[in-house]
Amino acid sequence: MRFQQYFHIRIVIFLLVGLLFNESLSSQNADSLFISKIYKVALSDSSSYKMLKYLVTQMPGRLCGSAASISACRWTELKMQELGADTVYTQEIKVRNWKRGPKEVAEMKLSGNSKYSFEVCSFGMSKSTPDDGLKCSVIEVDGIESLNALPDDSVKDRIVFYNKKMNPENYTSFMSYGEIAVFRSKGVTDAAKKGAKAIIARSSSFSIDSFPHTGVMRYSEGIDSIPALSICTRDAERLSALHKKFPEKKLFLKTSCITYPDTVSYNVIGEIKGSEFPDQYIVVGGHIDCWDNSEGAHDDGAGCIQSIELIRLFRELNYKPRHTIRIVMFMDEEVAQRGGKKYAELSAARNEVHIAAIESDRGAATPFGFSGDMPDSCFSSLSAMVKLLNPWGIWLSYKGGSGVDISPLKPQGVPLMAIVPDSQKYFDYHHCANDRIEKISQREMQLGSASIAALVYLIDKYKWTLK
Amino acid sequence: MRFQQYFHIRIVIFLLVGLLFNESLSSQNADSLFISKIYKVALSDSSSYKMLKYLVTQMPGRLCGSAASISACRWTELKMQELGADTVYTQEIKVRNWKRGPKEVAEMKLSGNSKYSFEVCSFGMSKSTPDDGLKCSVIEVDGIESLNALPDDSVKDRIVFYNKKMNPENYTSFMSYGEIAVFRSKGVTDAAKKGAKAIIARSSSFSIDSFPHTGVMRYSEGIDSIPALSICTRDAERLSALHKKFPEKKLFLKTSCITYPDTVSYNVIGEIKGSEFPDQYIVVGGHIDCWDNSEGAHDDGAGCIQSIELIRLFRELNYKPRHTIRIVMFMDEEVAQRGGKKYAELSAARNEVHIAAIESDRGAATPFGFSGDMPDSCFSSLSAMVKLLNPWGIWLSYKGGSGVDISPLKPQGVPLMAIVPDSQKYFDYHHCANDRIEKISQREMQLGSASIAALVYLIDKYKWTLK
Repeated sequence: MRFQQYFHIRIVIFLLVGLLFNESLSSQNADSLFISKIYKVALSDSSSYKMLKYLVTQMPGRLCGSAASISACRWTELKMQELGADTVYTQEIKVRNWKRGPKEVAEMKLSGNSKYSFEVCSFGMSKSTPDDGLKCSVIEVDGIESLNALPDDSVKDRIVFYNKKMNPENYTSFMSYGEIAVFRSKGVTDAAKKGAKAIIARSSSFSIDSFPHTGVMRYSEGIDSIPALSICTRDAERLSALHKKFPEKKLFLKTSCITYPDTVSYNVIGEIKGSEFPDQYIVVGGHIDCWDNSEGAHDDGAGCIQSIELIRLFRELNYKPRHTIRIVMFMDEEVAQRGGKKYAELSAARNEVHIAAIESDRGAATPFGFSGDMPDSCFSSLSAMVKLLNPWGIWLSYKGGSGVDISPLKPQGVPLMAIVPDSQKYFDYHHCANDRIEKISQREMQLGSASIAALVYLIDKYKWTLK
Repeated sequence: MRFQQYFHIRIVIFLLVGLLFNESLSSQNADSLFISKIYKVALSDSSSYKMLKYLVTQMPGRLCGSAASISACRWTELKMQELGADTVYTQEIKVRNWKRGPKEVAEMKLSGNSKYSFEVCSFGMSKSTPDDGLKCSVIEVDGIESLNALPDDSVKDRIVFYNKKMNPENYTSFMSYGEIAVFRSKGVTDAAKKGAKAIIARSSSFSIDSFPHTGVMRYSEGIDSIPALSICTRDAERLSALHKKFPEKKLFLKTSCITYPDTVSYNVIGEIKGSEFPDQYIVVGGHIDCWDNSEGAHDDGAGCIQSIELIRLFRELNYKPRHTIRIVMFMDEEVAQRGGKKYAELSAARNEVHIAAIESDRGAATPFGFSGDMPDSCFSSLSAMVKLLNPWGIWLSYKGGSGVDISPLKPQGVPLMAIVPDSQKYFDYHHCANDRIEKISQREMQLGSASIAALVYLIDKYKWTLK
């Protein structure tokens, strides 16, 4: 298509609405101008995209307990210092230390010497197969209910194959994800209860591709721990077809995951000291860990870099916040969320006052708005702030969840928020080798960085008084 | 990140708003349910994505006058018949017939035998260089004003190199595009007036990559026609660096474009006959032509397929429209817009009544809403319709342009609309070899198909009475 100049009209309408309805016109015009500067400075610069590229390509597979995760801690510490944070420090935590073994195998022998190899990966924290593998018949089900409807002896000693497609009918892909992720917890337990030897679950992706998606799994106490694996969507379809054709063919699985003793790791925190209320905090963060099979670009390298970018944006615009801003690189979101818990624990022990916490952990696609887990009085203010970001495509505010790392702050009454980007493609990347820097658009990521910075500016200025 | 169920809250709020403020509650609840079905049927099916893949990979380079463009006409005709259109027919038009020659060359000799080759392409309708090429010094400028500030003799006999980056500061990428596209018209004329031998302009992309972007150019009458080329952003930076280092080095250009006599082509139109008002029309369309250097996936294969998809969606849901729906594959949007003009001319001659026209020609990324070129009374109704699509991420309505193909209907007073998707990455693909099927997400495209179908359903039901 050709050029159609249309956006100025929205800005005019937006300003007119401001003219008619707003009591503190000049102040809010000044806000709009400053917000506009934040976006322009964010969109005009590629340094944070380059930082993200460095982080995810030089330190991929930053699972807690890994060398890469420790390098990433040190690197973000140095980066925040370079960008001019007033202080940067770490919080020590103990993390789980699970390691995937070498190439994980899932094979089915066909006629003669031919065999079919499936792309699989163990779910995080899964037990390994025996050293010489596991060879069992398969029972395919489309969910836990179907499994539980089967007699135990049709499940016993078999590999349970959960082959449920992500439901494409939801607008928000996270809703469909929730329906699938349950196989990594209850799905494992229910299969083990019926005597299954392992489970293998179709990856949570709308695409048909060759990337198996991992994610943390959980065993219930008192139930046998059985290996739990993910199979890429392409091979889930192939396994299903082969199984229908040759129901007695056995599937061979071989993995060698090990859980080592817990080890030391860190949250990394950079502060911009508040000029008026240095003892009141606004937290902005993402998680620095990611899955071992991935660069962790969308999940959650981008969220970390968007948070760090706030330091650059405020310095560049010479904005000195009234409250102390804490940029937090949370460790261990993916396995046991110990970084988030530790942060909240220390904060509670010190009776710290947090006026807000924002998490970026839903990918770096074009942002639409913010979800708020907070009282109504704060939420109406959040909605008013979102209106001010409307010329930049931020239109959505709703009461909902925030993020796994900041939610331990909830008992302290901290208003919590998540930035909400477009989710349509997120599960093409999530927890798999396809979550690469090439899948991130600098502009989309920077719209997120700017939206977070603009929201922090408004919270810092108005606290929750803007209505 | 992990699962956070949040979207149901928006739907609840949305329904509550409906409860409180709407006079025709049951009717609008029925609308919401039907709209929801449209989206679900669209998101659950991959047939239209497969159609798009076939169209753009089997018939790439569908520039008007090309064999591929004629194949695409015939193929869309058959597809609309297969999907159950009541009638499918063509409108004959005469189109321009410009052809790019073989590999276009831009080279600069460095020391010894080494030379640097730049990725370039002629703009559409550009004159060719002489058969043995053109070798001239370069003068680099950042725009037309800078050019016109130069004395004529510093431009005469040189190649004018417009090296202006797309402005990254705008939220809407089309605004930045407009500032660059001017080099293909006034930029050529002003350079020719000053005696330049050719122009070469930096491609309109925010990315630094190796794809030169074409687009139609125009010569002014009475001014010498000089060759006009686009250079990819990566090589614009290299040419600029080399030119700064070696200002007297000459650039060699060789192209062999030919403009053949006008030839025959077609608009293709599929109709679903209206049950109550068969003589009143709602037009939905995209343009079937695309640039010769591209698959034309975003621009505008996707817009064509989204339009055709409406036939499938209405059939699948057994919706029989009251007004006649015309699905139009417009020919020749890219060069002289003769398809759009012919459609409007025939419609005027027959005194046809159009109640609306919708164009999809801004790429297939996640849609945000609709722009309307229409009287206020219709626009307030459009905004009310957009509200009903809110649970599916459609939130934006503004008065602005529609599309190049339907805008010739404006003198007949037809309310015109364009679907408006996310534009952040559009110019990574636009008019270049990077506009490929791989750059289209099935879900994002189908959100567009469903949004168009839902809007057509509402217009068909309420005309412009919904407020």
